[in-house]
Amino acid sequence: MANLEKETNMTENRQVMIDSLPDGKLQESNYRIETSPAPEPEADEVLCRTLAVTIGAGTRAGLQGSASYAGAPRTNIVMNGLGVARVEKSRASGFSESDLVTCPSGWQDYSVHKGEMLSRVEDDIDPAHYLGALGTNGLTAYFGLLRVGEPNSGETVLVSAAAGSVGHLVGQIAKLKGCNTVGITSTPEKCQLLEDKLGYDSSVSYRSEDFRQELKAACPAGVDIYFDNTGGDILGLALFRMNEHSRIVCCGVVSQYDTSNPAGGPRGIPGLLVNKRIRMQGFLVFDYLAEYENAKDEIKGWIKSGELKPINDDFQGLEKAPAAFVDLLAGGNVGTRIVRVAD
Amino acid sequence: MANLEKETNMTENRQVMIDSLPDGKLQESNYRIETSPAPEPEADEVLCRTLAVTIGAGTRAGLQGSASYAGAPRTNIVMNGLGVARVEKSRASGFSESDLVTCPSGWQDYSVHKGEMLSRVEDDIDPAHYLGALGTNGLTAYFGLLRVGEPNSGETVLVSAAAGSVGHLVGQIAKLKGCNTVGITSTPEKCQLLEDKLGYDSSVSYRSEDFRQELKAACPAGVDIYFDNTGGDILGLALFRMNEHSRIVCCGVVSQYDTSNPAGGPRGIPGLLVNKRIRMQGFLVFDYLAEYENAKDEIKGWIKSGELKPINDDFQGLEKAPAAFVDLLAGGNVGTRIVRVAD
Repeated sequence: MANLEKETNMTENRQVMIDSLPDGKLQESNYRIETSPAPEPEADEVLCRTLAVTIGAGTRAGLQGSASYAGAPRTNIVMNGLGVARVEKSRASGFSESDLVTCPSGWQDYSVHKGEMLSRVEDDIDPAHYLGALGTNGLTAYFGLLRVGEPNSGETVLVSAAAGSVGHLVGQIAKLKGCNTVGITSTPEKCQLLEDKLGYDSSVSYRSEDFRQELKAACPAGVDIYFDNTGGDILGLALFRMNEHSRIVCCGVVSQYDTSNPAGGPRGIPGLLVNKRIRMQGFLVFDYLAEYENAKDEIKGWIKSGELKPINDDFQGLEKAPAAFVDLLAGGNVGTRIVRVAD
Repeated sequence: MANLEKETNMTENRQVMIDSLPDGKLQESNYRIETSPAPEPEADEVLCRTLAVTIGAGTRAGLQGSASYAGAPRTNIVMNGLGVARVEKSRASGFSESDLVTCPSGWQDYSVHKGEMLSRVEDDIDPAHYLGALGTNGLTAYFGLLRVGEPNSGETVLVSAAAGSVGHLVGQIAKLKGCNTVGITSTPEKCQLLEDKLGYDSSVSYRSEDFRQELKAACPAGVDIYFDNTGGDILGLALFRMNEHSRIVCCGVVSQYDTSNPAGGPRGIPGLLVNKRIRMQGFLVFDYLAEYENAKDEIKGWIKSGELKPINDDFQGLEKAPAAFVDLLAGGNVGTRIVRVAD
């Protein structure tokens, strides 16, 4: 707290700016750090001190093309991202100094927001969970699996990017619902982790030369729900493992974000969808906004009871955010990638 | 009837046999006609005199590959197909001479079946309707549009192969449900027919050089339901016209049946499915078996009231069946292709 006071008095604001748009793979050099005085809140505004920001693969889509829900890409703006923050000064009713909130902080130390942009969070749990299991990632796993996937006990749930921010929660929630879970991830080391720490029943590395055969062997009863975080070749192979009346939850396309030349679609569409009566459905978590609070209550209950063990994958220091993002896109993360900015 | 008696007494049975499997496009020469004595019914069997058979594009899938619900392809068997027939001799309880039935007659004059393979049909309507609007085609249109597509009044329904056996009924049922309908077909002449005779609000020819632009212009409010009978490039373009929360009904893949090298899947999958929250769902009509009778009652009501005008596209004579099939796959048909075998 003494530390925080000192920083606050300096009112220096470090900002990670988008310096250039990536041409091919994202690089740390696509960002630069600027320092400027912290902003002052106007009437109805709140000054927030960023404690942590989360980095999601989906943000990559905002840096290219036009066919994205994230809007057209721009440079010379602070990189966007959701943060958890402590209120430093409030000129908005309903918020007081030292309240904990989530806000669209971006990658910077300080940000000001209208009160309606903030969401107060409780202090009975590590606030970084509000960027993970109790934030967009957790809600995405929750609504995608339960509402789009509609799992039944005993079914097989296959998850790609299974160790990722969303995937590691999908696997655990599927187990809570009595499903058999199979995770797809990058390396044998991560496979081990899926089975030892994240509760997956089995796992497959998509980098294996025998991936196709290993995927088949890992799903002896076929796949009833494929929770697709990747698209691309993994989706193409998973399609051929789907059971009749199975569901493909189209959650993300991480295989296609970090490129300016997205691949063609998977073979077998639509033929296999017809023959196997497969439902393939995209969703965005925002569509379930009205149900967020109930879902958060349920997820928090699972965390407190120990039934759900979210993993936060921390980087220390705002200046590490670009490296954390590049590493995330290369498949380096386990759980929710968090950049801790201040205590 | 005198005519029929004469033919019956001859008990000569013409059969259209699969002579070879198509290598590339189906040819009339893939079939041959054989003549043999009509079979005699054993105990619990019924001898059926084929009056008409229907030819559906989906049957083509049974002549190649393995990934089909129709089973592995074979030669030197009678070509399969559903017929409407008159009972000639019955040794099965529940059926008597001159009853009208539907049965898996195949392309031949006479066939014998266990009683449980037959479906009795009423004689208050042209029995050929039981091969079209009151048969698999009509039920496919009905369940695909209403159960998978879930249309709401005022929505835009786009249909490919819109003049086809299923498509021409989908468009009409969509109009009955208050939708705006856009049909995709092959030629400008067929487009005219879609609008003049089949009740489509607008139409587009996929052979037009400006197909992409014309499709866009024909759907100014986007597409809420795409009823896909074709797959391939048409699906690929339709995807980019879909509205948020829209549905793609995957009914058939006619563009891919008549080839031994199916194309890759459409670009934009799964990215567009996510961004637009599109549900893409395959179905087979057999899944709705328990509801067939209610559906037939409703469809028959529409036909009798004149609200639904099914079109039967007749070829005269069993020997014309191979030509009728080849022409169908080339996009030559309007409505349900029927081969009339006897009066």
